[in-house]
Amino acid sequence: MAGQAAIDFWYDPASTYSYLAAMRIEDLAEEAGVAVRWRPFLLGAIFKAVGWTAPPFEALPTKTRNMWRDMERLTAEYGLPFAKPDPFPFNSVLAARVSLAASEADRPRLTRAIYRAAFGERADVSRPEGLAPAIASAGLDPEATLAAAVSAENKARLREETEAAEAAGVFGAPTFVTADGDLFWGNDRLERALAAARGLAAA
Amino acid sequence: MAGQAAIDFWYDPASTYSYLAAMRIEDLAEEAGVAVRWRPFLLGAIFKAVGWTAPPFEALPTKTRNMWRDMERLTAEYGLPFAKPDPFPFNSVLAARVSLAASEADRPRLTRAIYRAAFGERADVSRPEGLAPAIASAGLDPEATLAAAVSAENKARLREETEAAEAAGVFGAPTFVTADGDLFWGNDRLERALAAARGLAAA
Repeated sequence: MAGQAAIDFWYDPASTYSYLAAMRIEDLAEEAGVAVRWRPFLLGAIFKAVGWTAPPFEALPTKTRNMWRDMERLTAEYGLPFAKPDPFPFNSVLAARVSLAASEADRPRLTRAIYRAAFGERADVSRPEGLAPAIASAGLDPEATLAAAVSAENKARLREETEAAEAAGVFGAPTFVTADGDLFWGNDRLERALAAARGLAAA
Repeated sequence: MAGQAAIDFWYDPASTYSYLAAMRIEDLAEEAGVAVRWRPFLLGAIFKAVGWTAPPFEALPTKTRNMWRDMERLTAEYGLPFAKPDPFPFNSVLAARVSLAASEADRPRLTRAIYRAAFGERADVSRPEGLAPAIASAGLDPEATLAAAVSAENKARLREETEAAEAAGVFGAPTFVTADGDLFWGNDRLERALAAARGLAAA
């Protein structure tokens, strides 16, 4: 049965490679004819569940250094702004809540603005003052958006979304999941995930 | 100053994604006009130095499962045989010694044969009996090659090579290092590493 090709795009606002995917996915998905569901979640909660209190790369300083070098190279290749966040990792709870609080129509634009602020302009998106200019630049009202973000309902929804990510087998970010549950991890898998989603819908 | 473009290709015989890179690098390097130095090392020794006794992905069963799913997809895309090794990870010390013992001319062919045996035919390449057919299939003498592999000199050389990998900043496999020391980690970075090596030589 042919239908609309679709994909879940799971991201954490503090994830380096989710920044790259967030800035690339819309054009690539349009080209592939795939609808994207933008789903923020908290990767830290999934790490905490297996006993990790820090991202796994932190144990190897050479690996951490290379991640930033890799980000330098890839942002240059993609033509994206890049300024290493400091501190890193930063607390992404509020940014994830803000991203989730937006309507589905606004969420991609708002989320890209948050990523650009965090990884392109070194804004402190862990705090309302750092998020407000990004929200405004996406054409939304900072005060209303931040209020919606911290509502009890939206907080509960982010917890549920994080549980849904875990249930879908998500262990990192970005992650792409096709309609049949096949999981693709990492910005490097974005094109293949979209091709798979398109193939499924055509089948 | 223009010169011959070159790259170091660091691999561990037990590394899944090194299998993919080993099978792909020769054609891609030839196309890019880049000479490849095949350098086996022991990733476990580098992990051990930071206190890891198991590969980091093992803490997250969902991540381990996805690695195999990803390998299934990528081997299909590349047209490579694939049979998940069992047990995994396997001890790769002897296979790394065998790869290093070969001449530079024989090493690529021999190493590909070992990878094909380990990841395409589920051969137990942790042992001489599992390695012998792979060595023979590469047109080399199994007995002589295995004897050279376990010589005191070759064992010492592998330790030195592993130290050289660590000194170069290697934290995973496969890793590609260009003449200026820039490091690219993972099969996903092979094409970009070759392009960088080529760019350096042309500069």
